[in-house]
Amino acid sequence: MKSYPDALEALMAQLRKLPGVGPKTAARLAFHLVRQPSADLESLAAAILDIRERLVLCSFCQNLTEIDPCPLCRDESRDRHLLCVVEYPADLVAIENSGAFRGRYFVLHGTLAPLQGVGPEDLRLEKLKEIVTDARIEEVILATNPTVEGNSTALLLRENLHPLGVRLSRPACGLPVGADLEYMDPVTICRSLDGRGTL
Amino acid sequence: MKSYPDALEALMAQLRKLPGVGPKTAARLAFHLVRQPSADLESLAAAILDIRERLVLCSFCQNLTEIDPCPLCRDESRDRHLLCVVEYPADLVAIENSGAFRGRYFVLHGTLAPLQGVGPEDLRLEKLKEIVTDARIEEVILATNPTVEGNSTALLLRENLHPLGVRLSRPACGLPVGADLEYMDPVTICRSLDGRGTL
Repeated sequence: MKSYPDALEALMAQLRKLPGVGPKTAARLAFHLVRQPSADLESLAAAILDIRERLVLCSFCQNLTEIDPCPLCRDESRDRHLLCVVEYPADLVAIENSGAFRGRYFVLHGTLAPLQGVGPEDLRLEKLKEIVTDARIEEVILATNPTVEGNSTALLLRENLHPLGVRLSRPACGLPVGADLEYMDPVTICRSLDGRGTL
Repeated sequence: MKSYPDALEALMAQLRKLPGVGPKTAARLAFHLVRQPSADLESLAAAILDIRERLVLCSFCQNLTEIDPCPLCRDESRDRHLLCVVEYPADLVAIENSGAFRGRYFVLHGTLAPLQGVGPEDLRLEKLKEIVTDARIEEVILATNPTVEGNSTALLLRENLHPLGVRLSRPACGLPVGADLEYMDPVTICRSLDGRGTL
């Protein structure tokens, strides 16, 4: 097989490691990059290296931050006794943008995934228990995703946090706002009927 | 809107410049990169910078290469009087892997695209004419894609090369091998019937 010059093959090999990038996308990205001015390539390479140099984990919420503790954990106006546990930093941003939560967060950076070798010991459980105790948290919202992994992670957290005497809750499941019943999956419809409220 | 730390936002902004990468994919890629070990990030950044440092255009075929002229143009076993014009380096690789062509190539690095501001002056026409004359090329295969842009580029090349007295040809259009007539588009069927051969 005729192949590309080594430098280009090397770049494609690196790009193929990214999630959702197969050989064709890697080639397309590599050819795109080849056509860019040097300055743009340097900016991209610098941005990649910067995340390792500038980002740390917040010692409280475990979110990515440039200053520890992160601005959100330092914010005195937030409810210090309310904690929301999420899987990933992107989940935190989504909840934060909803404006519906004024406590602090705890980012697990994962869920239980036995098939991928992620067990309870990888989820910073001890750190979470320590925070719940030390910060005298009154309620923990277990906001892992309503998926198999997220649900089993929530159950694991309940097992671990229940002995601490803290109130535990989980966001409601149901129809997303704006949804069309015709196109909703049966499990969601089931959950939305089970959780129906009086009008 | 709550956003990510600056270093992460900067990386996402860089990733969004890649073709086919919107805000969500950029975020997914950035979070993937954040979880990688430093050594992997350094390899990726180095591979990106390397393409500018190590790749040049072959002075004959204009393909990307680390040595000028490229190994393919230096190969004495290839037919020196047969030239195949393609749009992009990836097209050259596809033809080369088919094993059906033993001449040399010329890479246009584009097609006529008036709406994107790509005119005849951007297609290295003078260089192509110079090569056709100096290398005493006998036949030029105009292997731009059978698309609107590729066809009009082929017509432009014909206009420019015809006066040089060189034989010009274009790859056949028709049904791809293994195709199912039921699912072929009418234009392809039309072309395959027009170009039918006696059995």
